[in-house]
Amino acid sequence: MELIDKMLAGDRLSLARVISFIEDRGEHLRALVDEIYPKTGNAFVLGITGPPGAGKSTVTDKLVAEIRKSGKRVAVIAIDPSSPFSGGAILGDRIRMQSHSGDTGVYIRSLGTRGKHGGLSQSSKEVVMALDAAGFDWVIVETAGVGQTELDVLKLAHAVCVVLVPESGDSIQVMKAGLMEIADLFVVNKCDRPESDKLVRELINMIGMNEAAMWQIPVLKTQALHDQGIVEFFTQVCSYRDYALKHGKLEEKRAAFIEEEILEIIWSANARVVREKMHSESGRKIVAEVLSKKRTPYEAADKFAE
Amino acid sequence: MELIDKMLAGDRLSLARVISFIEDRGEHLRALVDEIYPKTGNAFVLGITGPPGAGKSTVTDKLVAEIRKSGKRVAVIAIDPSSPFSGGAILGDRIRMQSHSGDTGVYIRSLGTRGKHGGLSQSSKEVVMALDAAGFDWVIVETAGVGQTELDVLKLAHAVCVVLVPESGDSIQVMKAGLMEIADLFVVNKCDRPESDKLVRELINMIGMNEAAMWQIPVLKTQALHDQGIVEFFTQVCSYRDYALKHGKLEEKRAAFIEEEILEIIWSANARVVREKMHSESGRKIVAEVLSKKRTPYEAADKFAE
Repeated sequence: MELIDKMLAGDRLSLARVISFIEDRGEHLRALVDEIYPKTGNAFVLGITGPPGAGKSTVTDKLVAEIRKSGKRVAVIAIDPSSPFSGGAILGDRIRMQSHSGDTGVYIRSLGTRGKHGGLSQSSKEVVMALDAAGFDWVIVETAGVGQTELDVLKLAHAVCVVLVPESGDSIQVMKAGLMEIADLFVVNKCDRPESDKLVRELINMIGMNEAAMWQIPVLKTQALHDQGIVEFFTQVCSYRDYALKHGKLEEKRAAFIEEEILEIIWSANARVVREKMHSESGRKIVAEVLSKKRTPYEAADKFAE
Repeated sequence: MELIDKMLAGDRLSLARVISFIEDRGEHLRALVDEIYPKTGNAFVLGITGPPGAGKSTVTDKLVAEIRKSGKRVAVIAIDPSSPFSGGAILGDRIRMQSHSGDTGVYIRSLGTRGKHGGLSQSSKEVVMALDAAGFDWVIVETAGVGQTELDVLKLAHAVCVVLVPESGDSIQVMKAGLMEIADLFVVNKCDRPESDKLVRELINMIGMNEAAMWQIPVLKTQALHDQGIVEFFTQVCSYRDYALKHGKLEEKRAAFIEEEILEIIWSANARVVREKMHSESGRKIVAEVLSKKRTPYEAADKFAE
């Protein structure tokens, strides 16, 4: 656990090792998380999502620079380079780190956990804990937001910002339900494009005026590549944070986050046990009986759950 | 269970109701699946995936027409219209059905299960069972293939076809690992585009020549919109099916599918119990202790797993 002490003292190499350890999900993971967890609770976790091509990485990078100006430390985790179609994130990391190189107040890391069923969501939570314990004031979780897993990951965020571009306007109606549920802020990026005002209006209409709501979801315009709108974006994120703190929303989200973490811990232990049973001699026999229609999957589940 | 008899007799309205019942995941689901399961085992399940814009729907529709020419019945399930960013699939369904309207040998349905953690994968498996029991010889599962959940869904397929377009060529290197794992066939669609031969060559290089392999993954060229290459595509899918049957691959995949289904059944029952415990008075106290750092999530998990 010397590794953890070094990480807590600010050693970046140790932090990188702790994160890899979490990703690998080895057998001593519990001891590590038990050690880290009591040191958490300081960081504010911001999720940034949106369709591919919306400029999420650029928006994130500019926000990172803005957070640094405020004197705070910030970590970014990028999800999910592991999808065969998301492409490029791992290579992108190296390039992105360069613009903040030498700044020990910034840490950027991609999380790749392809092939580990359900592992991404649990790993992300524990990596956020590690970054929180390591003293980062802000943790930004950037996801491509194209699948249910990526949306599940956003549940660990204290605030979610959805980044859109004018081209995505067409599908707004269909997207409506899903976006409204997760967004605390909207950013319309590449706002120099002709259709962007239309998109802003559509979003404002979608959100509607809710006099009773204590937080009116803002729709911000940015041109991240040219540093436009970033100061306002950061200001609004801070306003949301203040609102969430003041009205107990942060506490609610932390509780939900903990409940999910507990469920996932129980299930990974359970799944290991059930898998072992299924691969034992008598287990194989039961699976074979399901294959030959002598039992149904539910009947077999009763056997394995015993 | 009259509903099931009607479905088995070919009534489409009953089939639609059974699918909705599965999606809703109500309390009598087990009885339904227990009834349906013994009637399954005839259908061949083909997964079709690829990045957005590759023309998966067109490729699928043309393949459906080809399957119909062979006199076989075919069902298509489209996943995941529920992602806020995938957009349009639900509307698309109606349009797609029209080209096969009046043909009772074709059934097309979108599956949307946003917000139900893990439910998509389980529902898809059970919907495939229903379609199989209802007498469809082919079940095509079309996914946007952009997230881990969508890739997980493909595990239920007996064969997976990855559809690409020349524009996706750039990211091939990064995509390599993920694609190689899941693809049994590649289709390069919109092959009239200038870069398509380059993409075909890249894919063939990636696959490599494996003299020992009993199935050499083919790279097919299509222009689905103009019906080009579809006959060859169908022929190759049939070749794969024959190969999979002959070499026990189908049996292996069916066993893996059953194991996953059993795991998911056990976990949905378990998760319900654990959630109830967490929301009881003593459970809330434990969660509160985790929030105040008196316990770690792992220690709480021990309590709830008891």
